[in-house]
Amino acid sequence: MTVAAGELFLAEIREQPEALLRLLEHEQEFAAVARAFADRRPTVVRLVGHGTSDAAASYGVYAFGLLPGWTALRDSISLTVYYDAPLDLAGSVVIGLSQSGQTPDVVEYVDRTRARGALTVAVTNDPDSELGRAAELTLPLSAGPEHAVAASKTYVNQLAALALLAGGAAGREIEIAEGIRRVADLLKDALGPLERAVPAVAIAFAYVGRMYVIGRGIEFATAREVALKLTETCRVAAEPLTATDLAHGPVAALDALFPVWTIASRDESLPAVLDAAARVREAGATVVASGNAAAEIDGAAYTLPVPEAPNPILAPLLSVVPGQLFAAALAHAKGLDADRPVGLTKVTRAR
Amino acid sequence: MTVAAGELFLAEIREQPEALLRLLEHEQEFAAVARAFADRRPTVVRLVGHGTSDAAASYGVYAFGLLPGWTALRDSISLTVYYDAPLDLAGSVVIGLSQSGQTPDVVEYVDRTRARGALTVAVTNDPDSELGRAAELTLPLSAGPEHAVAASKTYVNQLAALALLAGGAAGREIEIAEGIRRVADLLKDALGPLERAVPAVAIAFAYVGRMYVIGRGIEFATAREVALKLTETCRVAAEPLTATDLAHGPVAALDALFPVWTIASRDESLPAVLDAAARVREAGATVVASGNAAAEIDGAAYTLPVPEAPNPILAPLLSVVPGQLFAAALAHAKGLDADRPVGLTKVTRAR
Repeated sequence: MTVAAGELFLAEIREQPEALLRLLEHEQEFAAVARAFADRRPTVVRLVGHGTSDAAASYGVYAFGLLPGWTALRDSISLTVYYDAPLDLAGSVVIGLSQSGQTPDVVEYVDRTRARGALTVAVTNDPDSELGRAAELTLPLSAGPEHAVAASKTYVNQLAALALLAGGAAGREIEIAEGIRRVADLLKDALGPLERAVPAVAIAFAYVGRMYVIGRGIEFATAREVALKLTETCRVAAEPLTATDLAHGPVAALDALFPVWTIASRDESLPAVLDAAARVREAGATVVASGNAAAEIDGAAYTLPVPEAPNPILAPLLSVVPGQLFAAALAHAKGLDADRPVGLTKVTRAR
Repeated sequence: MTVAAGELFLAEIREQPEALLRLLEHEQEFAAVARAFADRRPTVVRLVGHGTSDAAASYGVYAFGLLPGWTALRDSISLTVYYDAPLDLAGSVVIGLSQSGQTPDVVEYVDRTRARGALTVAVTNDPDSELGRAAELTLPLSAGPEHAVAASKTYVNQLAALALLAGGAAGREIEIAEGIRRVADLLKDALGPLERAVPAVAIAFAYVGRMYVIGRGIEFATAREVALKLTETCRVAAEPLTATDLAHGPVAALDALFPVWTIASRDESLPAVLDAAARVREAGATVVASGNAAAEIDGAAYTLPVPEAPNPILAPLLSVVPGQLFAAALAHAKGLDADRPVGLTKVTRAR
């Protein structure tokens, strides 16, 4: 069976509400692992992954920081895997993120940190993978097979998985699971209108070669993931930036041919995002506003809002979707096949 | 007195060996603070800064990981400053990095973490600044006044400051200080030849609008700082990537018009950098090779090597210099004033 260019990617984006519900079937397993985390009283939660999984790790920093109040970090893989640094890991929880469960660096990181006393957990779409076998505990992403090279449903399920773990660690597993269920509903309703809205935006960007994607706080993960989608499916040099870092240098590169995608969600970091968007406009750049507070971005040329999540912590599960759909539409406008980016394979074995 | 375009930036790059020696006059103060760190037996070292200071923080992650074997992280400023997350900070050491000592987010982060029990240290070129007053302990960068908007000597002194602190925490303060003294000598000899070599490279990139800058491990900080220099002084969309992350998406965007700057230094992460450079070449992109192992990058169109540091941990103090000089030369080739990037001021008050 031949599939038209970009159809796999699009089908998987559309499938995200169902993928979230499949993950929730494993609610009890996540709650049990979260209890194991809490029993360990970790000094730090170490999150590792590459590409999309690393963008999800950025979300984990905030989910663990805001729910149980734990310090989580996107750990340096190279410190452990290449340099064999003498870190004390006894108080650590490790979460290895990999859709395929085959990312060599991540598997080796989990192997080594487990041997040195960390509590290791794999979160993967393939629990029988190398990563699944390397970790002490394994949790399924349950997104269903992902065929497009560019990840979509596995990213949203990674966010939900991290929210369940962080929520469970804070004793709030029921509230967070209920919130994710509600997000799946909201997403189901939002997908159609967003999909119809993006082609008109994409056509305006058909000749764009570079973009910034800005977010702050919990939405920095979204900025990273949207930038990655644009880079891999549209061959745009799209760089994610925190709203504040934009002012520390990159704003100097902006002009009318260098558009900026902003993620504006209603939370404590929104004022910083609004300030950054104003600077972008001053520099003459075109602004696309997304997120549940997209309407608050003054002077945006295009606005792609999403519904408000039941809990601000779950906003990123919704706010990534306009970026995913825009990437699909922009690839189409550029005549590229979003399903088969040049030079990439679904399972990346690079070290 | 009028100064020709780009001359301030260039003069400060040339002054880096002297700036390092000025920092070493405070060797004892750094050693005393490092002892205070060791007495605290921290669970984590939290590094915060924006822009160039955040690139230096990336170096700190490796300096503390490799020398005393401590977990250091570039902490989320927004978790503490915007979200007021309930993190346990009693076992934390905080290092606030800001050339001016006036970055509002960093000052507030230090204020809040100090109030909540962290041991806070400011490292700043102006110890009498707000940041200097906010922290419990203050260390001078001693780089001398920096006038160009784009940082250079304050970055290299931030690296040296972090190396002294991490070395002191490991009881190796004398060895590291001696190493920095040797780096200052090596740098003095290398500057002239590098400055003469860069214009011929820059001219080939006069019309380039986007680049990737790749490094791995301890040299990821260098990648971040070189990318920032190119972005702010040359208006190039230059994105830093770890060598491995390149293969997880961004390689798809490369072609003959999208060059890649690589930092290759002789250490355990070098094979990953060589692999990434080979992928870049396969994608048809032009490669510039820098670092002390630049000669090992096959197929590089341009090679800008630096001398080997006396300790691999100090390599980044040398390997950033070709990138700084290249940025100065490229700004000149593009007809831009590297001293006064569009839309930037020396002290960034953005939140």
